[in-house]
Amino acid sequence: MGVDLKAPIKVYMTRKLIGVSPDDTVKRAGEVMLEFDVGSLVVVEGRDVVGFLTKGDIIRRLVIPGLPNTTPVREIMTTELVAVPSTTPLGDVLDVLSKKGIKHILVEEDGRIVGIFSITDLLEASRRKLETAIATE
Amino acid sequence: MGVDLKAPIKVYMTRKLIGVSPDDTVKRAGEVMLEFDVGSLVVVEGRDVVGFLTKGDIIRRLVIPGLPNTTPVREIMTTELVAVPSTTPLGDVLDVLSKKGIKHILVEEDGRIVGIFSITDLLEASRRKLETAIATE
Repeated sequence: MGVDLKAPIKVYMTRKLIGVSPDDTVKRAGEVMLEFDVGSLVVVEGRDVVGFLTKGDIIRRLVIPGLPNTTPVREIMTTELVAVPSTTPLGDVLDVLSKKGIKHILVEEDGRIVGIFSITDLLEASRRKLETAIATE
Repeated sequence: MGVDLKAPIKVYMTRKLIGVSPDDTVKRAGEVMLEFDVGSLVVVEGRDVVGFLTKGDIIRRLVIPGLPNTTPVREIMTTELVAVPSTTPLGDVLDVLSKKGIKHILVEEDGRIVGIFSITDLLEASRRKLETAIATE
């Protein structure tokens, strides 16, 4: 598939971090997820990433307990951020995702969050390379 | 990665279809998704698959409109089922997912739903093959 497990994760991550404020409602966060077709958002306060929110977090912490969609993001976001350095090989990142049972991970450089990687990014990277290969046949 | 784009999708799909009833509440469906760690469920009535429910459907049709978690699954499930024959090559299936902007697809054999394929299955298949390769080095 043209995917190199030894390549650094920065090759496969996306730099397009979609952010919401911790004071935004979960309704708004859901709308942003659908608008940008992403399964996770970073929660940003000032210049800092203070949390992370996935569709799974919304199911687990809002839908199941039956909280209203006006609940602020800060009440259900994940504050323990999982991040890997941007030089980490893809294979090692897949290992972390698999062991932790997660589908998205933040990528850092010099202590700053610079990107995010999800399994979907890998699919898209594979497809792009595949299409390139077909186009140059 | 040891992933063969020409192999039939039945090699990569999972036969473990996790089902709920159309009369189950969305709260229950969310609990089942978390319990089995899946992003989608088939909705089963008698022996028939009558619908499909993803985390995205729950965000779009329950969380954003602010419906209660006691809403029955049948009110927010997707009834237009997207399925491919089990002999379809993986590469073609990835194409369908990409074009339709979806992450899960049903797999059929002789007009019956026999499995489901998601991007996560591909990751797991890649990892299993990778681990096998490492173990036999």
